[in-house]
Amino acid sequence: MPYVNIKITREGGTTPEQKAELIRGATQLLVDVLGKNPNTTVVVIDEVDMDNWGVGGESITVRRKAGK
Amino acid sequence: MPYVNIKITREGGTTPEQKAELIRGATQLLVDVLGKNPNTTVVVIDEVDMDNWGVGGESITVRRKAGK
Amino acid sequence: MPYVNIKITREGGTTPEQKAELIRGATQLLVDVLGKNPNTTVVVIDEVDMDNWGVGGESITVRRKAGK
Amino acid sequence: MPYVNIKITREGGTTPEQKAELIRGATQLLVDVLGKNPNTTVVVIDEVDMDNWGVGGESITVRRKAGK
Amino acid sequence: MPYVNIKITREGGTTPEQKAELIRGATQLLVDVLGKNPNTTVVVIDEVDMDNWGVGGESITVRRKAGK
Amino acid sequence: MPYVNIKITREGGTTPEQKAELIRGATQLLVDVLGKNPNTTVVVIDEVDMDNWGVGGESITVRRKAGK
Repeated sequence: MPYVNIKITREGGTTPEQKAELIRGATQLLVDVLGKNPNTTVVVIDEVDMDNWGVGGESITVRRKAGK
Repeated sequence: MPYVNIKITREGGTTPEQKAELIRGATQLLVDVLGKNPNTTVVVIDEVDMDNWGVGGESITVRRKAGK
Repeated sequence: MPYVNIKITREGGTTPEQKAELIRGATQLLVDVLGKNPNTTVVVIDEVDMDNWGVGGESITVRRKAGK
Repeated sequence: MPYVNIKITREGGTTPEQKAELIRGATQLLVDVLGKNPNTTVVVIDEVDMDNWGVGGESITVRRKAGK
Repeated sequence: MPYVNIKITREGGTTPEQKAELIRGATQLLVDVLGKNPNTTVVVIDEVDMDNWGVGGESITVRRKAGK
Repeated sequence: MPYVNIKITREGGTTPEQKAELIRGATQLLVDVLGKNPNTTVVVIDEVDMDNWGVGGESITVRRKAGK
């Protein structure tokens, strides 16, 4: 019954295949480490616009323009 | 002052009326069970793309195609 | 597969019976409004200390002392 | 390493400049109050449709129409 | 800069070693799938009491007693 | 009606006064930047054990022991 939420920035678009791999990998991690039942393990991926994500007091949009 | 977050998949689109009913029902539940003040009860509904939601290690997109 | 998160303040302690009723009610709401499968509906209740919850710029601890 | 999540309604659109100011201000708050390192402070802003946000058992869409 | 939140039930206690493995594995997953920088990948594990987690309209406490 | 969630590690304990200042400051930020109503602005602070928070693939417990 674990619930895994993965938040990433929307930078050019993460492909369905990459999302499927994140879901597969996160589910398998809970199986491997805690023996959890994959059928009741929920994984939700949130993609966040770069204007809406900040680190170091700056948005990712600003940081990317500055080559950070 | 309760905060309720409801995450559902975006499958053909939940109507404004259904969302209003989720908000009404969730608020009333907190009133009925815990006597909370509806005027300070916040309900937020997140709709998640089917590529972005996984169960059993698979995305909902894949599961729907397989009739799950 | 809905995921419902209910955040409430820890004020004298919500009983197991009340939590069970919140879980039952929230699950039933998703069944009634969106026809969701209760067996894959996850409900998580977070209880938050009154020092850690703020409204109107004040913690609930301070507001309760001021009779708010 | 703090993580700050700010959820606001999507009402006409919050500008990139306002989002940058929310990110700057939230980061500075953690520096000022807890001496946290801004370079590892993450701020994520979620904008929620007015149909998807409820208070007092009503969606913000309904409340705005009623002048609330 | 990804943020990963893993919510699990508190059932007898997940050991520090298991938590370290969840953190390592979740971080590595983001490196492998999306080439993310591990040094800015945040993983937060929430442990939830069994009274506070529900599936199928029942708390995990009730389900465990019923051998589910 | 904004909702602000601040997650910080539990390192020796953040005082009630510091939490009150985080609540005050976060609420004021939403007033200053977006003109939001402080009386319906909710701030929730989550304190997370150092074993349960990871960066760079390591828990904060491990990083603190290594002087990071």
